Amino acid sequence: MNTQHETPDILITGGTLLTMAPPGEIVEDPVIGIRNGKIDFIEKGKIPAGHYGAVREIVDASGCIVMPGLVNVHAHLAMTCFRGLADDLPLMTWLNDHIFPAEARFINRRSVYAGAMLAIAEMILSGTTTFCDGYFFEGEVGRAAIAAGMRGVIAQGFIDLPVLDQSGHSEKTAIAKRFVKRWRDRSPLITPALFCHSPYTCSPETLRIVKDVARRYGVTFQIHLSETREEIRMIRERHGKKPVQHLHDLDLLDQNTIAAHCIWLDDEELDLLAAGRVKVAHDPESNMKLGAGVAPVPGMLRRGIDVGLGTDGCASNNNLDLFGEMGMAAKLHKVFSGNPTVLTAERVVEMATIGGARVLGMADRIGSIVPGKEADIILVDMRKPHLTPLYHPFSHLVYAAGGADVVMSIIGGRIVMKDRRLLQMDLAAVMEAVRRIATRVKSG
Amino acid sequence: MNTQHETPDILITGGTLLTMAPPGEIVEDPVIGIRNGKIDFIEKGKIPAGHYGAVREIVDASGCIVMPGLVNVHAHLAMTCFRGLADDLPLMTWLNDHIFPAEARFINRRSVYAGAMLAIAEMILSGTTTFCDGYFFEGEVGRAAIAAGMRGVIAQGFIDLPVLDQSGHSEKTAIAKRFVKRWRDRSPLITPALFCHSPYTCSPETLRIVKDVARRYGVTFQIHLSETREEIRMIRERHGKKPVQHLHDLDLLDQNTIAAHCIWLDDEELDLLAAGRVKVAHDPESNMKLGAGVAPVPGMLRRGIDVGLGTDGCASNNNLDLFGEMGMAAKLHKVFSGNPTVLTAERVVEMATIGGARVLGMADRIGSIVPGKEADIILVDMRKPHLTPLYHPFSHLVYAAGGADVVMSIIGGRIVMKDRRLLQMDLAAVMEAVRRIATRVKSG
Repeated sequence: MNTQHETPDILITGGTLLTMAPPGEIVEDPVIGIRNGKIDFIEKGKIPAGHYGAVREIVDASGCIVMPGLVNVHAHLAMTCFRGLADDLPLMTWLNDHIFPAEARFINRRSVYAGAMLAIAEMILSGTTTFCDGYFFEGEVGRAAIAAGMRGVIAQGFIDLPVLDQSGHSEKTAIAKRFVKRWRDRSPLITPALFCHSPYTCSPETLRIVKDVARRYGVTFQIHLSETREEIRMIRERHGKKPVQHLHDLDLLDQNTIAAHCIWLDDEELDLLAAGRVKVAHDPESNMKLGAGVAPVPGMLRRGIDVGLGTDGCASNNNLDLFGEMGMAAKLHKVFSGNPTVLTAERVVEMATIGGARVLGMADRIGSIVPGKEADIILVDMRKPHLTPLYHPFSHLVYAAGGADVVMSIIGGRIVMKDRRLLQMDLAAVMEAVRRIATRVKSG
Repeated sequence: MNTQHETPDILITGGTLLTMAPPGEIVEDPVIGIRNGKIDFIEKGKIPAGHYGAVREIVDASGCIVMPGLVNVHAHLAMTCFRGLADDLPLMTWLNDHIFPAEARFINRRSVYAGAMLAIAEMILSGTTTFCDGYFFEGEVGRAAIAAGMRGVIAQGFIDLPVLDQSGHSEKTAIAKRFVKRWRDRSPLITPALFCHSPYTCSPETLRIVKDVARRYGVTFQIHLSETREEIRMIRERHGKKPVQHLHDLDLLDQNTIAAHCIWLDDEELDLLAAGRVKVAHDPESNMKLGAGVAPVPGMLRRGIDVGLGTDGCASNNNLDLFGEMGMAAKLHKVFSGNPTVLTAERVVEMATIGGARVLGMADRIGSIVPGKEADIILVDMRKPHLTPLYHPFSHLVYAAGGADVVMSIIGGRIVMKDRRLLQMDLAAVMEAVRRIATRVKSG
């Protein structure tokens, strides 16, 4: 045991640590030192806390699971404004008759900031410490994240509909460049990226322009892909091929492309994604609620494709709780394959932590509890009736726990939530701002 | 408005009332009077509380949904002792290699009482006010429910395995009669019933004996039915027919039979269940986690079959939160049918309340908020980030809320949970009792 440490800022003692490095590792009664925002050391056994000097904050994690903060690899934060506005509808009806019109009327800088802040509140309270957002007026999402102390990948959106914050093809390169340059060194919490809505709402030219900028600046390119059978039909009509082939032929598939949904894929398309080292964002609750379909996740994992978990926008989910997505992913693939061994609890926790970090290209910085990495850590209180008794920590996280069981969230070494209270924002004001927007939406 | 009331014991004012009579009815700012354990009156509008005299307790439901307590139509409470003991396994392996052996060694009066009490704590905290349990040493479940102020249907279990609390066929009639007679007038909270484990673990003789007693005393007869393809195969081998036909030929199908799971049914079997007015307990999370399959719920509802929601035992789920089952039912049938309109949020809330009451034959007493019915009422706090904004109450209950959002549970006019604190039990002691059992299970 090495005890030659500088005095940590925060010391977490006790509980059950899941390092996720390697996945499956369980350390009972750890002592974790956090210094300058990073994980400084991990020791084992019960050590008198005074041993480490004048620590600013000592966190007693007795009875808790200590684990990496969850990574939400696909979301549209500002859609909190439309949470539950329209349900129980087919995706295209939901999108064309409800969501796109509501976005056209009510989405602006102000509502994106307000909606993003509410989403961040919800995510922190349910154990997510890194999100990946794709939307419009994306700078507002970055501003909200910095204000709240949240880590995020913010992907400026592009769509060929004349309703949002860009007008013509000619401006797209400039907008994309400006966005990446403005955000790439702004804050250690923020990573810029670019997002094209889908192959059916973006022209080949738009897709190529945006991916070109992403490549030039080394940021991720994100896109909804093969979400519905309707999309497959549209792309076939327009381009005579399947969506993955379409993107492949446009040279969009590489290790910095994150494809969300990826439901209607055949083996050939799965092979193309694997060969391109494309990353996949799996959003089971959204896919189920919209009746979109079931992504072939076991087939992706067999091919070594990196798969993370996302909530999607919470107009199609309708919350941002990754614990729900973990349980859903584990159960959905069991029943859909008829094989209850197809996706274990441990594998699902991996998808929601270090797996998600790999999807975002951030596995060197987040996703596991390892000295040198960012101190993005959550505590889940196991002393609850629904988490009693405790045989296997991974099982409880996936099959029994919920976001409401998270009692502390630390992001970059800063405690942003403690005992279910958010420390970096005025929650009542955050909720009220979105309620005011909803009042306008309701009155049409 | 009728204001000629006796002074109520409890007055609930404000909030948004979902009466479920009819389903879909929404009353803003209700005033609900509770007297002698029953709902006495419902009025509308903001009325000064003093108007009703010296009320013992006035509950301010501002910002909350007020609704009937949830009805869990299929559970095995004592299995909390084995929560998370064995996951990610096929049903028959899980049952034969893990659960049956653990039950044989560790299930006794003491563990059933301890496990049931923990289950009741969890259920009350997540908004369930009536459970339907089928297990062994069932009297202990009744004792726990009475001690905790919980409403329950307790169904004494029968199984032809030499491991549990009865030994031979000859004793079954006596055991069943004694159980029903002992419990039928014991407490207004308790309704006795009888439970045969399944067509593959109970002989035709056992099934007939138990159903005969149930008929004679007018109590429900419960059974697991058509849960796995393996069961279908076994029944075909032994009896040359499908399980539903087997039960039909034994004259077991009537309106007082509750069949749990009902996954592998063809149209003919669905018609048999409908013709017999058999009730169905749908347990989506358990069915998914065990990879058992997807019950044809839309087909049941089209035939007018009463379907309620159950959690199943929490060794196969792994919690008892009916909010999770509501969200799961809504999403599972959408994705499985490819039709997002197949099961609406409102319909799912109906299944979890008045629909569940119909399944248990208790719709005259519970399941909706109507004068004269038992005062089984919960409050769900909507002033949370993940429930903001609020467009449609039913949507939030099914797609965004969780059991942890329930802030008050009233059963038979008694407040059993307030502000997330259980008022009728020592929760720490209840959890510790099950932890001690788990320690023995772990050490084998």
